Amino acid sequence: MGWNGNNASKNGVQERGFTLEVDGRTVPGVYWSPEDGNSERLVLLGHGGTTHKKVEYIEQLASLLIARGISAMAIDGPGHGDRRAAQQDGNSGDNTLDEFPNMWNEGGGTDAVIADWAAALNFIEAEQGARPTGWWGLSMGTMMGLPVTASDKRIKVALLGLMGGGGVNGADLLRMAPDVLCPVRFLLQWDDELIPLKEGLELFNKLGTKHKTLHANPGLHSAVPRFELFTGSVEYLDQRLK
Amino acid sequence: MGWNGNNASKNGVQERGFTLEVDGRTVPGVYWSPEDGNSERLVLLGHGGTTHKKVEYIEQLASLLIARGISAMAIDGPGHGDRRAAQQDGNSGDNTLDEFPNMWNEGGGTDAVIADWAAALNFIEAEQGARPTGWWGLSMGTMMGLPVTASDKRIKVALLGLMGGGGVNGADLLRMAPDVLCPVRFLLQWDDELIPLKEGLELFNKLGTKHKTLHANPGLHSAVPRFELFTGSVEYLDQRLK
Repeated sequence: MGWNGNNASKNGVQERGFTLEVDGRTVPGVYWSPEDGNSERLVLLGHGGTTHKKVEYIEQLASLLIARGISAMAIDGPGHGDRRAAQQDGNSGDNTLDEFPNMWNEGGGTDAVIADWAAALNFIEAEQGARPTGWWGLSMGTMMGLPVTASDKRIKVALLGLMGGGGVNGADLLRMAPDVLCPVRFLLQWDDELIPLKEGLELFNKLGTKHKTLHANPGLHSAVPRFELFTGSVEYLDQRLK
Repeated sequence: MGWNGNNASKNGVQERGFTLEVDGRTVPGVYWSPEDGNSERLVLLGHGGTTHKKVEYIEQLASLLIARGISAMAIDGPGHGDRRAAQQDGNSGDNTLDEFPNMWNEGGGTDAVIADWAAALNFIEAEQGARPTGWWGLSMGTMMGLPVTASDKRIKVALLGLMGGGGVNGADLLRMAPDVLCPVRFLLQWDDELIPLKEGLELFNKLGTKHKTLHANPGLHSAVPRFELFTGSVEYLDQRLK
């Protein structure tokens, strides 16, 4: 297990696939770096529920980070992307929202997520060296990223949001939030139809760090404004990741 | 009434005082512009309760705006600054929080505020020409700025916050908020001891514009982080004011 040869290169971005075995689970991942190889910082990208590690907005974020000299890494979430394709033939890699809780739980839930991301970061650090590391992830990207940030002190800054204490692993999030001690920007959508605003505010409130800022915009769950989702969040990570 | 000769010039900033008569009220103001006179945009700066038009953070904001080629203008709020000095001899120009509701109401309240700022903007436009104009004001700066932004369509973008629907003119703010239709960034302090968080969230909710973003940080009323108060808010106005 290790680099799996699924490589690509375009627009100054080098992409390399890897596959790890973690506690009996197969964990497919991808690492993006500048083509010239120079990169002294790293951001882990957590995709949202029902999508996968190379969904369009994750690839776009990777490009924007690379443009600032920051490498990026992503793995498929529990039961998502290539993990699901490995189990069931003939699916697109996308899943439906109804299936989501089962996918999350059968994929191992919060504990497995922490172990999978730690193993992926261990692998990248072994290959590329340890560097200041941040997290970017909304919705399921926060279901994964909040526990990872709370438990892995290598994460120095996190962009989180679109999640509350009432979600599939809400109890874990509320319990672990006080252990998040690095700077956090937390995004919420005022009219979120999936995550009640109150539950999002409650989770932000529980974050242990004093250096946290809530950004809330009008609109539904998936309508985060582009200035917030892309430019704003990448600028934030770039400024705070040292 | 007009330019009053209270002028100064330092660090590339030209400062000129003016005094207007509005419905029998004496309105003292100040206009800041780049020393070379080149400025195609303008921001109105509304100071907080118990302070005055040239309180330190207002002067600092004026400098930061000037550095981006944006002129600035401020007047004393109802019963504040030189307005109070004109009535009562021998005071410092600062006032206490207990006195605040009386100062606001005896100064004419919301209606007078709208008329005073409109007159001041009329004066500056008559002297310097009409330009894209924005608002910056927190706390009493929002008690003034929200009604001004709602009623004066010359205001194209506003930085507001630290105020809710339960304040001295809260009923006016809740009533007028739906008429605020320009882009707004709204700042709240999570642990505000003067403005209950719920009331701040309620006022943000009532703003009519779809282009509004809430930024909330931990801390008391006066503990807005510097990155939010200065750099962030000036950048926001610079980006949106066209």
